[in-house]
Amino acid sequence: MPGEAQVFRLPMSGPDDVSGIASLITDGSLDPTQIIAILGKTEGNGCVNDFTRGYATQSLRAMLARYLGEAQIARIPLVMSGGTEGGLSPHWIVLSRTEGTGSVQSETEAPALAMAGVITRPLDPREIGRSEQAELVRTAVLEAMTAADISGPDDVHFVQIKCPLLTSRRANSAVGDVATDNMLKSMGLSRGASALGVALALGEVETITDAQIGTDMSLWSSRASCSAGIELMACEIIVLGLSRQWSGPLRIGHDVMRDAIDAPAIAGLLAQAAPGTGLQQAQASLIAVLAKAEASGSGQIRGKRHTMLEDSDISSTRHARGFVGGLLAGLIGHTELFVSGGAEHQGPDGGGPVAIIYTSLKGTDA
Amino acid sequence: MPGEAQVFRLPMSGPDDVSGIASLITDGSLDPTQIIAILGKTEGNGCVNDFTRGYATQSLRAMLARYLGEAQIARIPLVMSGGTEGGLSPHWIVLSRTEGTGSVQSETEAPALAMAGVITRPLDPREIGRSEQAELVRTAVLEAMTAADISGPDDVHFVQIKCPLLTSRRANSAVGDVATDNMLKSMGLSRGASALGVALALGEVETITDAQIGTDMSLWSSRASCSAGIELMACEIIVLGLSRQWSGPLRIGHDVMRDAIDAPAIAGLLAQAAPGTGLQQAQASLIAVLAKAEASGSGQIRGKRHTMLEDSDISSTRHARGFVGGLLAGLIGHTELFVSGGAEHQGPDGGGPVAIIYTSLKGTDA
Amino acid sequence: MPGEAQVFRLPMSGPDDVSGIASLITDGSLDPTQIIAILGKTEGNGCVNDFTRGYATQSLRAMLARYLGEAQIARIPLVMSGGTEGGLSPHWIVLSRTEGTGSVQSETEAPALAMAGVITRPLDPREIGRSEQAELVRTAVLEAMTAADISGPDDVHFVQIKCPLLTSRRANSAVGDVATDNMLKSMGLSRGASALGVALALGEVETITDAQIGTDMSLWSSRASCSAGIELMACEIIVLGLSRQWSGPLRIGHDVMRDAIDAPAIAGLLAQAAPGTGLQQAQASLIAVLAKAEASGSGQIRGKRHTMLEDSDISSTRHARGFVGGLLAGLIGHTELFVSGGAEHQGPDGGGPVAIIYTSLKGTDA
Amino acid sequence: MPGEAQVFRLPMSGPDDVSGIASLITDGSLDPTQIIAILGKTEGNGCVNDFTRGYATQSLRAMLARYLGEAQIARIPLVMSGGTEGGLSPHWIVLSRTEGTGSVQSETEAPALAMAGVITRPLDPREIGRSEQAELVRTAVLEAMTAADISGPDDVHFVQIKCPLLTSRRANSAVGDVATDNMLKSMGLSRGASALGVALALGEVETITDAQIGTDMSLWSSRASCSAGIELMACEIIVLGLSRQWSGPLRIGHDVMRDAIDAPAIAGLLAQAAPGTGLQQAQASLIAVLAKAEASGSGQIRGKRHTMLEDSDISSTRHARGFVGGLLAGLIGHTELFVSGGAEHQGPDGGGPVAIIYTSLKGTDA
Repeated sequence: MPGEAQVFRLPMSGPDDVSGIASLITDGSLDPTQIIAILGKTEGNGCVNDFTRGYATQSLRAMLARYLGEAQIARIPLVMSGGTEGGLSPHWIVLSRTEGTGSVQSETEAPALAMAGVITRPLDPREIGRSEQAELVRTAVLEAMTAADISGPDDVHFVQIKCPLLTSRRANSAVGDVATDNMLKSMGLSRGASALGVALALGEVETITDAQIGTDMSLWSSRASCSAGIELMACEIIVLGLSRQWSGPLRIGHDVMRDAIDAPAIAGLLAQAAPGTGLQQAQASLIAVLAKAEASGSGQIRGKRHTMLEDSDISSTRHARGFVGGLLAGLIGHTELFVSGGAEHQGPDGGGPVAIIYTSLKGTDA
Repeated sequence: MPGEAQVFRLPMSGPDDVSGIASLITDGSLDPTQIIAILGKTEGNGCVNDFTRGYATQSLRAMLARYLGEAQIARIPLVMSGGTEGGLSPHWIVLSRTEGTGSVQSETEAPALAMAGVITRPLDPREIGRSEQAELVRTAVLEAMTAADISGPDDVHFVQIKCPLLTSRRANSAVGDVATDNMLKSMGLSRGASALGVALALGEVETITDAQIGTDMSLWSSRASCSAGIELMACEIIVLGLSRQWSGPLRIGHDVMRDAIDAPAIAGLLAQAAPGTGLQQAQASLIAVLAKAEASGSGQIRGKRHTMLEDSDISSTRHARGFVGGLLAGLIGHTELFVSGGAEHQGPDGGGPVAIIYTSLKGTDA
Repeated sequence: MPGEAQVFRLPMSGPDDVSGIASLITDGSLDPTQIIAILGKTEGNGCVNDFTRGYATQSLRAMLARYLGEAQIARIPLVMSGGTEGGLSPHWIVLSRTEGTGSVQSETEAPALAMAGVITRPLDPREIGRSEQAELVRTAVLEAMTAADISGPDDVHFVQIKCPLLTSRRANSAVGDVATDNMLKSMGLSRGASALGVALALGEVETITDAQIGTDMSLWSSRASCSAGIELMACEIIVLGLSRQWSGPLRIGHDVMRDAIDAPAIAGLLAQAAPGTGLQQAQASLIAVLAKAEASGSGQIRGKRHTMLEDSDISSTRHARGFVGGLLAGLIGHTELFVSGGAEHQGPDGGGPVAIIYTSLKGTDA
Repeated sequence: MPGEAQVFRLPMSGPDDVSGIASLITDGSLDPTQIIAILGKTEGNGCVNDFTRGYATQSLRAMLARYLGEAQIARIPLVMSGGTEGGLSPHWIVLSRTEGTGSVQSETEAPALAMAGVITRPLDPREIGRSEQAELVRTAVLEAMTAADISGPDDVHFVQIKCPLLTSRRANSAVGDVATDNMLKSMGLSRGASALGVALALGEVETITDAQIGTDMSLWSSRASCSAGIELMACEIIVLGLSRQWSGPLRIGHDVMRDAIDAPAIAGLLAQAAPGTGLQQAQASLIAVLAKAEASGSGQIRGKRHTMLEDSDISSTRHARGFVGGLLAGLIGHTELFVSGGAEHQGPDGGGPVAIIYTSLKGTDA
């Protein structure tokens, strides 16, 4: 399946605005049969009752149905993440491929952006937020790595996952007990189990137990980004990495923010994309930025109290997205940034993984 | 009145936690009779029903009453600004003075931080949000400049104002019509009128009319920062600047963010305090950071749509504070930042003034 | 077009759950070609960024497209009203007709529920919230009355309208000035202009001027219920009344709540549907309940202060719907009640019209 | 301690408006040394970061300090409950006593309102939300019954409790583990433990274990009303009942709402106060109404779905208060109703206890 990776970032005027993607198809820039996944940063609250995710997904499906059969559409991960707090701007990220030059990179050339999507079987409600989910994700990540011709864990730079949550209906239909009867809490456990599945696949963690999920925050993946949504029962997994089997100018890099104000980590990452440039100057080569944000459970950032976890008017995930969004936008210079909340087991407490997809400028690959 | 300026930044565990300030008094670091003003960044919503401001003010007054008479307390501007969205940390900033060395700076020494507070007469409800308010503020700013021995507008670097708003009771008690019968809107008009008063005093604007307040956003001050609150009818004004009549190591600088992601402006300002240092390294010399934030009325930041003005669940001022707070915290390296919202006529649309108070390192004054 | 009116009330498990309506069509209970209108009470915030309305509309259209052509669907008013605060339950109300007995009611029989829907031409942005909109609505109401064979204003018991709002894009595209550049305010002006259009049609008001819309709250209709939404530029109008030209057991009645706690008005109305019964006993004959709710502009209810207009965390429309919803549910005994917010010119300040559709029990018609 | 009970209900223009109570003292209506407790329904969010409770308490203390010593004030339960959603009106309820006629009620006279307040020792963080808390409350309730000369559990009609919650600081300071490390959850566990303490004291429940608190919702008290607040570490308990040892015209009655729309229960209760009167006509004899409200954990009310538990923008407790407030206000005819949220173990799931204090009209006592 290798070839040349294509990544399009497009503005969205509302959750049902799929016109930008449709135009790409119409004008021949995007071959709908080659779409690997579509990500959407939508303008809902990113929490339980965020219907912008389902609305965007329904709108995408209706548009894609003009070009693809139902089974084809079902195989494309559509990962919607709600929440554009602060100045963040709603947008789509379309991942696809072309045949490229047909020849793989030569030994001396740098590895290029490689990617693949996998959708797992539907989970049983009993599995959600537990080690069974983590195992399923582990297997799927490895499968996607193979599909993308990514040779090993070190070449994986980001794994974006959309996973299910427990509703009271689902909990009631389960045979046996479920991980939690709290819907919002099930979102966190499901994200956490998915992230630990990634950590298992990438060798960041060796084993996990049910009791560690959502509890032992010393276990985390440096490359997992997980969102939970009511609109699915399977896990949808997109693996992004580097491979010499792929061609083209696109590259990916990642780092981990140690806390919510870890600007130096971001600055270092941007320097990969545009060495030697200053503040807000890397954006010319940046295609997409993917980051996780969350309120630190300690209630502090570098010893100073924050109030995100005590605010009963605004969910802490909304606070965290807007705040980290501001930091990223300041360093980068624009606001179409895919910042998602709820980073359980995705980076250290209060921090999270960040990845950038960029165009390699001649001679800048190491 | 000149001398040596003192600025203390102290954490606050809640709106009623004045223990840090009390300790300063008890241990002799702070002479209560020399307090010029106290600013508080409290953890409410920063909007109409933010009672953390009144609660903090009441707590301060009760504590100060142990040391000062009622009339003395009444002369101290207590400027509470609600809203610690994102990772921002609630804190106090206490401005005071000591006699210093007793001798003014010599001609060859750099001017030092100078400050004074003035409280105007109570406004009539009819004046709120109108040119009468702007005129009152203009006069008071000039008066404070004189009191602080600041020689001209160029030496003023920040003017922090707390001003009144219209409640329905106040509107009904007015003889004649009021500027608006909408309480939230009156906050914006009052902030705007105050800001234009500063602009008049500093020569940034020559004249203003009622119709321009809240409407003609091409008129703005680069150094005004205004908050409106229900707990007062006067305007409380603090002028901060530089003067050779004051001594000591403290300095102040300011710049204007052109939009919500104007990190280069901040980076430039930080370079004043700590020339030649990198990301997050100026904080060693920083004492306090004061900034304004708001959602741009255009609905865009550098051509990309934001959703702050269309979010009926969270006020745009809350979004803006958290977002700009993230940017500042990333560049500076901590979260005790006095970011306040509602920047009408305070900097350009979507941007706002920022000031830093810092300790001058030997030899770094220009 | 007369016949026998059908009204179905159906639960909704989410904005995209149109399964109940689809089942009615599949099992032959509902002839899709005879649908007059579909109302939906969806679980969004009912304010600017409520995407549950668009999501529900898109879901309805996709389902109806299995049975109807595009032009047919376009002629059916789909009126979504967001907000199920408190214990209110999301639901659909489907209005349709059957041929009925084929013979009109005899002189001695009571008039039956009659209804018709009309969609106006798209409005120009300049017309929104102004007398032009009111005039358009007046004409459309009269047209719908004729279509429904309702003989005069006294036989009209409820007029449900969905009308457009101004976005900044629409405002910018307008030739000439628009009524307001504030999106939330434009919702109120549009609802108000629509309501005054109904008042004109029903002879409740004789003339109106632009200046009175949103301002002169002494002008109101006792039977208008208007919602504004981003998803349309026309006004969609449903007139409900009584006519001897229609047959069947359904009836409609209405009254006006004088304030938010006017339970006696509701009790009187319920006594029409089920004379002589007690608290919560009329529900057996009730098919649907439609009501408007809003926070009184005075800031008081019967002399006691409310805090709905000063709450910057929750929109006053959300407060009002939940509160009036509780009152209605207590009197009626269930929670599938179509309570919508924003009652400008729809009943007196702080109150609003309420209509009930019920099945006439033998011998209970006056 | 018996005598004649006095109950004053007073409007509050803000959390710091204690002027009404001060006037009662000044004009001699209220003897400050005889105050048994003060309840306040304040206009905050009623959740973790509701500072209106602390602000009101601080304001009360400052006012009372003009008349009472610190130790005297410390013995008066000051129970602030946040949340005036919908049309509810902020108000105070002052409970006090006078010597009365000096003679107890004769055998043939009806028992009169009797009351007493008790404050427990401070809890250890480890005890919060556990059976230790319930035991402490049990003992305190029995103590208060004795102090109030209430002869047995059947004569207790309402027990209002304010209890502590766990903050992260308190949790960290605890020796051993605490019930939960989630602040919002600790509020529920603390309320639940307090309610079960009342149930134990009144013989409604025989024993309880830690595991049942917050879990076994079949255990509940029909007369407990508990609020948790950050501002205290003890439990403040007010027992209200009937006793022949007290004199005067005041009476109390209670019932339990079986669900959020149990209007018949309220109608029956109002008929006790004003037999034979109609809708909204009992208010002439009503002094105060105290009720609990919560969203049913089943996600339904009488088989119809509600959305309170899935709304990530508004806490379910806010929804529930506004909704039940509307029902009560409709039946009663005014909005100064003490409706508090979070009814764990206080009545059945989704319902809650309601009490009314009223003036007995001649001859209406049974």
